[in-house]
Amino acid sequence: MAARILDGKKLAETVRAEVREGVAAFKAKYGRAPGLEVVLVGDDPASQVYTRNKEKASNEVGMQGRLHVLPASTPEDEVLALVERLNADDNVDGILVQLPLPKSINEQRVLDAVDPAKDVDGFHPVNAGLLAAGRPRLVPCTPLGCMRLLALAEVPLKGARAVVVGRSNIVGKPVAQLLLAEHATVTIAHSRTKDLAAVCREADVLVAAVGKAELVRGDFVKPGAVVIDVGINRVDAGNGKTKLVGDVAYAEAAEIASAITPVPGGVGPMTIAYLLQNTLTAAHARAAR
Amino acid sequence: MAARILDGKKLAETVRAEVREGVAAFKAKYGRAPGLEVVLVGDDPASQVYTRNKEKASNEVGMQGRLHVLPASTPEDEVLALVERLNADDNVDGILVQLPLPKSINEQRVLDAVDPAKDVDGFHPVNAGLLAAGRPRLVPCTPLGCMRLLALAEVPLKGARAVVVGRSNIVGKPVAQLLLAEHATVTIAHSRTKDLAAVCREADVLVAAVGKAELVRGDFVKPGAVVIDVGINRVDAGNGKTKLVGDVAYAEAAEIASAITPVPGGVGPMTIAYLLQNTLTAAHARAAR
Repeated sequence: MAARILDGKKLAETVRAEVREGVAAFKAKYGRAPGLEVVLVGDDPASQVYTRNKEKASNEVGMQGRLHVLPASTPEDEVLALVERLNADDNVDGILVQLPLPKSINEQRVLDAVDPAKDVDGFHPVNAGLLAAGRPRLVPCTPLGCMRLLALAEVPLKGARAVVVGRSNIVGKPVAQLLLAEHATVTIAHSRTKDLAAVCREADVLVAAVGKAELVRGDFVKPGAVVIDVGINRVDAGNGKTKLVGDVAYAEAAEIASAITPVPGGVGPMTIAYLLQNTLTAAHARAAR
Repeated sequence: MAARILDGKKLAETVRAEVREGVAAFKAKYGRAPGLEVVLVGDDPASQVYTRNKEKASNEVGMQGRLHVLPASTPEDEVLALVERLNADDNVDGILVQLPLPKSINEQRVLDAVDPAKDVDGFHPVNAGLLAAGRPRLVPCTPLGCMRLLALAEVPLKGARAVVVGRSNIVGKPVAQLLLAEHATVTIAHSRTKDLAAVCREADVLVAAVGKAELVRGDFVKPGAVVIDVGINRVDAGNGKTKLVGDVAYAEAAEIASAITPVPGGVGPMTIAYLLQNTLTAAHARAAR
């Protein structure tokens, strides 16, 4: 039996359409567009693509999206000053600092400086703490995308065994919190986990977010499980070219799982869609207070 | 084989002695004692005992401990005003608001008002978030006590399977974070978990923090596992009296486990010892900035 493919590209379009409607309603009510400010420091080519895409996506749904590009040599205090200026600007609802920052800049200090109410990445300790306390406010985008894909799969989470492979602050830990809030029994596995295959086979819901190409093999998957693959790894395609693969060996796992996200076109497109949703959420919360 | 008994009463004495030494060193360096302020609203008899014990314990290790008792009828804004006054007082290092508060008071609002730098209970979202982000500052006391008991048991945590039964913000979730930081593979189980016995039997380290008398039976325990029992439940002793039991059926589990905490005399005494440690930690962090 081949697994159902959870089409993140299509679902992300649905989320964007929802946000577009929400933005129109926000404008009608408050007389201004939600504002998203993206900060890029340096000239990393991948970061340039990501930040342009974010700016473009926010404008496409009717937001006021703006990209700030600073040279890699920008001193930390100038980056902090920009963040403070955006914190103080009442028309700015979301601030996203693209990672990684140049090595000369203390990344943690910059992220901690973002007003938690405008932290659309959900990385600020205050937002991590509110999520952990069961009072989510702004939640990291990729975990929100994973949960929406699970909703598409219509997998019952209450009492289900969920295994999250990877314990990053950006994906693994927050997605574990979200699964726990939905009453799943949640296991967090990682690089030190012994017999990862056996641990993964306990999962009704398996989320792979570890950044290792095709680490999760077909025999890690319990028959009928739902598999969410967060990994995006560029590997040698064998013909002198490269290709993108996930953390899951897709062809093998698709034989065993009941539903699975592809790479690309699974979790990836959901992340930017939930960045837009978070900006709208932040705008509403700020406007209402 | 009977399990080794992890004597929390004795270990708590060790922790208190460590804190007493630390307090003396703090005084020598900064010319003042660390200050712990305990706030009790109302006349709940159990809370009266707890808060007096905390005040007494802090003074015994050389701190400046003080108990504030407010009548149950105190309006919320007066409680908040007291918290603000303690926040602003430079001689106050730790603020503990005894729970539960009277129903007329929004507990969350009061706890959120405590300066995170003085939040010796570790309940503030900022401190929960820093713990979740792997940057622990002030961590809830009971989970710290559990980890110290595991250190006493000399159980290797790296790669071990740990199962936490219970997902409270005060114990279950933070102890899961601490176990994860020690590289255990951590499962969080709870009231919605299916076949709890089987899930518990996966555990090399089993932490029961669910508040249900003797829920965890002997056959939930993997042979040789280390069992930490956070529960303190008062039950009918059958002779017209009552007795305290944990969340674990002690006699049964002690036959199977390699080490186990008793109730009373296990985790309980560790909590207050780590309240003192947290106050010292807060004092040092505040004095150094």
